[in-house]
Amino acid sequence: MEALSLQEQLNRVMRDIRPLDGDAVDRARRWQEKLAKPPGSLGKLEDAAVRLAGITGRLKNEMSKRRIVVLCADNGIVEEGIGSAPRTVTAAQAANMTRYLTGMSSMAHAFADEVQVVDVGIADPYDAPDVLDRRIAPGTKNFLHGPAMTREEALRAILLGVELAKQAAEEDVSVLGVGEMGIGNTTTSSAVLCVLTGLTVEEVTGRGGGITDAAFLKKKSVISRGLALNAPDASDPVDVLAKVGGLDLAAMCGVYLGAARYRLPVVIDGLISVVAALCAKRLCPLASEYMFPSHASFEIGYMVAARELGLEPWFLLGMRLGEGSGCPLTFRVLEAVCAYTNHMATFDQASIDDGYLDDIRGKDCFTV
Amino acid sequence: MEALSLQEQLNRVMRDIRPLDGDAVDRARRWQEKLAKPPGSLGKLEDAAVRLAGITGRLKNEMSKRRIVVLCADNGIVEEGIGSAPRTVTAAQAANMTRYLTGMSSMAHAFADEVQVVDVGIADPYDAPDVLDRRIAPGTKNFLHGPAMTREEALRAILLGVELAKQAAEEDVSVLGVGEMGIGNTTTSSAVLCVLTGLTVEEVTGRGGGITDAAFLKKKSVISRGLALNAPDASDPVDVLAKVGGLDLAAMCGVYLGAARYRLPVVIDGLISVVAALCAKRLCPLASEYMFPSHASFEIGYMVAARELGLEPWFLLGMRLGEGSGCPLTFRVLEAVCAYTNHMATFDQASIDDGYLDDIRGKDCFTV
Repeated sequence: MEALSLQEQLNRVMRDIRPLDGDAVDRARRWQEKLAKPPGSLGKLEDAAVRLAGITGRLKNEMSKRRIVVLCADNGIVEEGIGSAPRTVTAAQAANMTRYLTGMSSMAHAFADEVQVVDVGIADPYDAPDVLDRRIAPGTKNFLHGPAMTREEALRAILLGVELAKQAAEEDVSVLGVGEMGIGNTTTSSAVLCVLTGLTVEEVTGRGGGITDAAFLKKKSVISRGLALNAPDASDPVDVLAKVGGLDLAAMCGVYLGAARYRLPVVIDGLISVVAALCAKRLCPLASEYMFPSHASFEIGYMVAARELGLEPWFLLGMRLGEGSGCPLTFRVLEAVCAYTNHMATFDQASIDDGYLDDIRGKDCFTV
Repeated sequence: MEALSLQEQLNRVMRDIRPLDGDAVDRARRWQEKLAKPPGSLGKLEDAAVRLAGITGRLKNEMSKRRIVVLCADNGIVEEGIGSAPRTVTAAQAANMTRYLTGMSSMAHAFADEVQVVDVGIADPYDAPDVLDRRIAPGTKNFLHGPAMTREEALRAILLGVELAKQAAEEDVSVLGVGEMGIGNTTTSSAVLCVLTGLTVEEVTGRGGGITDAAFLKKKSVISRGLALNAPDASDPVDVLAKVGGLDLAAMCGVYLGAARYRLPVVIDGLISVVAALCAKRLCPLASEYMFPSHASFEIGYMVAARELGLEPWFLLGMRLGEGSGCPLTFRVLEAVCAYTNHMATFDQASIDDGYLDDIRGKDCFTV
């Protein structure tokens, strides 16, 4: 058999992504109406239950194994002094995550969620045997001097993400979350978002981890100059990721594609996570049917990307930590969805005659 | 000792409610700044951690025992045909809750949260030994013919709620949630909210469990006529609860007061729960320092009451089930808050020099 090129491999993954199971969706919707509650009264939880059924093909699901995949990589652009912290923090925090010492990982550990920390391109050394070494390069290049990486590197990172999702499916993971660690990655995310949406740098760029006014002006200037120099092709997300993105972003994009390909629900975190999700949707629109939101990040680019994705965040918590810190919260909501869907009584079982609902069935009783 | 009147007992409870522990609040705020994350990057989770410390006096807390107190009662006003379901559903669902068969209780059970179902005034018979019988009356009276209950009944219901919170504190409960079951209670809640805010019936009234256009018009007319007939005194929440409220609402108000009195964090659910919380705040403003939000109910009155309380909901899930269904979700967020506060590394421990933060400390780096 002839070896497939990286692009052909990616094309094959995308070709194999299928829509939700329409029959399971219909059955799940009918089941939600049988449960002893006013129709639609669990709002987005009901929509989530229906979508889970469409993903797995099963009416009743369990969130028995939850995994947050954390893609870690450095960004050459931090040379320009736009980061909120020194580059070495990427390596230090990747290591700390495997010990459940960071914000996201300490939460995930409390709920027994798995945390898979993957080095896609950390520049500095670290001493943490539980970091999965899949380094494609020791960080990207400074995109003020040319593309951040080659197209081949971007494709390899995307396919790595697909492979991680495939591995999760093989290991019976019920749901994935997508996190990251990489100093400078709100800069790369804003640059990618700028190209994909056609909005101005001003409209999509926030302060990331927290920077002074002067550093914030420099961050926006760096993005503008990087876009002018590299001229990424908005119709080609791989080109955008390669020229002004990051290895973390590209691999995260791949995890979303892989989740859709291997039929796993996948949870979006904050700005970087949602920009990677948007890249995945632009590559393959069906991929977004497998995505679930978590919180609305405080970063202004988040809502821009969420709108493009047609995604409404579930939590308003003013968070902007990244790492995948919204994922443990959404996992809990999905557990709640499965709990009521699998265990609450139907009208028959609840000794409630649902005849009274005939008045409102099929009418729009909830236009506010 | 001379027996205290019901009003004197309530006054004593309110007199004993203290502000948060200022020293613990200060220590908790400093601790949040020591943890290895950009300052403020966990948003409302950080505020919650600080408030939990102020409530318990401890820097590190655990949500080891969580209890949802569900106050169940019938409302005489359902005679007018404004309910979304027959009155018998109150008794049926109270019984089902003790078997974890309803929306809220099936979720709570999955997370091993306790559900305490309390009969404050169910009209119909039920066969459920685990319902705690504290019935004050077999439902209220129709407020179109006079006050829903006497002032004494309202006071007894409030003091019952206080007692339930006291019992929870004695039983080492870490956090309370406040739920309800009572057909017709979005009508009573809207009536109470109308009086407390001075807004129009139109501005605070939604469709509750779901009713037709005709029933919705009748619901609003019933509230207007009840308010005109009974003329509740807006400056006296007990009078408002007695005249157009319900036994569930009054007891819920008492749980909030009792939570503050016995220093327990307490979680608000949807419309009915938030209106009871507003009554508690009007009786004793300090009570709101002990309250935590859950979701923004789809019911229009919710946001009105939340604004009055100065409360920003954490979840946007389009829910309107009631029962306390938002509480299991907020319990999980509070668990996440305790997890990272207790277990994530400080800058020292994380091998991260936080000197780089000196640039942004004390400056407003997050005005978007």
